[in-house]
Amino acid sequence: MKTTRSKIKRAPKRAQYDKESIYKILDSDFLCHVGIIHNDHPVVIPTLYGRKDDCIYIHGASVSRLITEIEKGIEVCISIANVKGLVLARSAFHHSANYESVVIFGKGELVSEEEKNKALKVISDQILVGRWEEVREPSDKELKATKVIKIQIEEVSAKVRTGDPVDDTEDYELDIWAGVLPVEKKFGNPVNDSKLKRNIEVSHSVKKAIS
Amino acid sequence: MKTTRSKIKRAPKRAQYDKESIYKILDSDFLCHVGIIHNDHPVVIPTLYGRKDDCIYIHGASVSRLITEIEKGIEVCISIANVKGLVLARSAFHHSANYESVVIFGKGELVSEEEKNKALKVISDQILVGRWEEVREPSDKELKATKVIKIQIEEVSAKVRTGDPVDDTEDYELDIWAGVLPVEKKFGNPVNDSKLKRNIEVSHSVKKAIS
Repeated sequence: MKTTRSKIKRAPKRAQYDKESIYKILDSDFLCHVGIIHNDHPVVIPTLYGRKDDCIYIHGASVSRLITEIEKGIEVCISIANVKGLVLARSAFHHSANYESVVIFGKGELVSEEEKNKALKVISDQILVGRWEEVREPSDKELKATKVIKIQIEEVSAKVRTGDPVDDTEDYELDIWAGVLPVEKKFGNPVNDSKLKRNIEVSHSVKKAIS
Repeated sequence: MKTTRSKIKRAPKRAQYDKESIYKILDSDFLCHVGIIHNDHPVVIPTLYGRKDDCIYIHGASVSRLITEIEKGIEVCISIANVKGLVLARSAFHHSANYESVVIFGKGELVSEEEKNKALKVISDQILVGRWEEVREPSDKELKATKVIKIQIEEVSAKVRTGDPVDDTEDYELDIWAGVLPVEKKFGNPVNDSKLKRNIEVSHSVKKAIS
């Protein structure tokens, strides 16, 4: 999956190209940034996604600007990135971040009416496994109001940085604290809907996600 | 700062345009996604940023592809987005996310040699206030190896969703748990560099960030 356009030019030692590494990063998140060219301008929009096999699924209202553009089959660039830690070196110059990021190139394709429900489940499963089975499925009217776009991954690359800062040899003698300040992302305690019926327990999918 | 291109078409009630709201969102993060048009393709790249007044600063190696493109003065679109919670409704259709997002349009401009150090401090301060003062400042050689790009915010919009799910009236009767599952991002415990000199305490900037 390594091609000219997605080849990492800077810091090639941070580049990872095997499918498994890339899918692992993609599956650990659900927020992506989608870039398109719209009226000759670059436009980037954040949206939720799901991955299945070598496809990314995004969805939106049938009338959404992003969706109606992408369904035309235009090129998209999708970026997913997570900062895992601040890398605090002894010199300003060697400060960095530990992170995982994936950049994908592909083209949008409208998911057919027949496949729409299944594709929406892919997105739902990515965000919270098991939630789909707990809730009322979309009605025909709701499905009509929603479009799902499939982007087959044509080109992809991943970049990962881990570990300690790397300082200049002489700087290790400075009396400056150095190390990594982890950035942690996790679910907090679920908050009941203020209109929740009495005696309804937090659902299984949520319990599992926070356990 | 509201213009045609950045006007929110979907869910306009989620749109916020006043400077203060927008700056507050921008200042609560340090990772952005920068979109450009490169050889007629959309390209999105994640990078760290700092904001000062109505400018976004990003930096990179002087030879970096993104930087050398943007310094030409081409148009960029910068997106910053954070999911604050999963909004778990009783129907699949009404699932949503609580989030804060900002989309910026502007053009890149290379920061002059004279202003470079100050601009780098803006980025450093955004990521970890006080760190800049604790570490060795960039040497002339290091400054030469770094470019900083200033993007003056020409157009900007913010979108924010908060609160409970909004279900269809009849769905409130379903025996399904609904509510918000918060997504929390915070610093973990600092990890000493494995080559840290003995008897060096965690620095003030880090202590302050985790307190």
